[in-house]
Amino acid sequence: MVEEATNRAITALTDRRFDIASQVIESDAEIDSKEVLIEEECLKILALHQPVASDLRFVIAALKVNNDLERMGDQAVNIAERAAALARQPPLGIHLNVDRMADVVKQMVRSSLDAHVNLDTKLALSVCRMDDEVDELNREMFAVLQEHMRKDPEVSERAVQYLSASRDLERIADLATNIAEDVVFMVEGEVIRHRGGEIQADTQ
Amino acid sequence: MVEEATNRAITALTDRRFDIASQVIESDAEIDSKEVLIEEECLKILALHQPVASDLRFVIAALKVNNDLERMGDQAVNIAERAAALARQPPLGIHLNVDRMADVVKQMVRSSLDAHVNLDTKLALSVCRMDDEVDELNREMFAVLQEHMRKDPEVSERAVQYLSASRDLERIADLATNIAEDVVFMVEGEVIRHRGGEIQADTQ
Repeated sequence: MVEEATNRAITALTDRRFDIASQVIESDAEIDSKEVLIEEECLKILALHQPVASDLRFVIAALKVNNDLERMGDQAVNIAERAAALARQPPLGIHLNVDRMADVVKQMVRSSLDAHVNLDTKLALSVCRMDDEVDELNREMFAVLQEHMRKDPEVSERAVQYLSASRDLERIADLATNIAEDVVFMVEGEVIRHRGGEIQADTQ
Repeated sequence: MVEEATNRAITALTDRRFDIASQVIESDAEIDSKEVLIEEECLKILALHQPVASDLRFVIAALKVNNDLERMGDQAVNIAERAAALARQPPLGIHLNVDRMADVVKQMVRSSLDAHVNLDTKLALSVCRMDDEVDELNREMFAVLQEHMRKDPEVSERAVQYLSASRDLERIADLATNIAEDVVFMVEGEVIRHRGGEIQADTQ
């Protein structure tokens, strides 16, 4: 559901689809209630079965991924809100590299979930590496839009909407990275958060 | 540490203090390593002592609060980066309601942590209610800054920095709200996330 919400929010933004944006916003309540249910299930398992070792790590990772997915759903709603506002206004008329950023983010979301389901640490580490490109694309987007606002103050409102959407995409990439890190933790029992460049060096 | 980082980042922003901004950015690595340590402690407790009922909820809440605090630290770094950039440029010269927003956010952070330490659900629920004011102040900030960019394109770069900082403050308020919600869960065993308006009605 969260992957679908993310993909739809991106389509609403790139294709100026008010109707799809509305669907994303409506579907969030169901994601929220799923989060509460999954958390309750995890707590039941911890209380009744008292898992240890890799089973314990699996439940803890599920708790964290559950939380990250719900936050990702919230970011998709933010993007959909920006998309809905932008769809009602004239196109900005400049080239923005939204498509590339959207493609990388979609791939990160998909791969982080596949890595989680298949306990695939190699795929998980590839997600961590993709995050740098998204950060860079987000910085480029800020530079292009700021330059545009300076030249033509009339676009500032729409440009700020795009800045917000770009930042939300970057946050979704961060959350996919969190999920990928939790996959490595779950499989290998090793915390790779906050290790930055080391991840790249370790796996090449 | 995270509360101090947040307060310092706000001071760096409101008082244009490049030096304080740098301190916040430097101190984040220590917060990151504390997060990893605390998580490892929680997992050890779960594995070795297999707590149940309120003890289990306490450990799970600690895991989640730990995660939220680390994210709050990241947002403080973002604000410090914006503050550092703004301190090197001339003041924007318009009145922004940053002080009020900063005061409410600081109070929410403090109260959410006090509520956690003292298992004070009444204080926790007051944090949840304060979040609406921060959302409203963030919206106002966007409106004022957009209007200003339209009138004077020269300010757009600095205005975008303020927009980012305002959004980071709003995110810190959200994270304080998450912590407050986890306090209620920990004490009463009840999930109050995603209940929105109900919280207010229940407690008046």
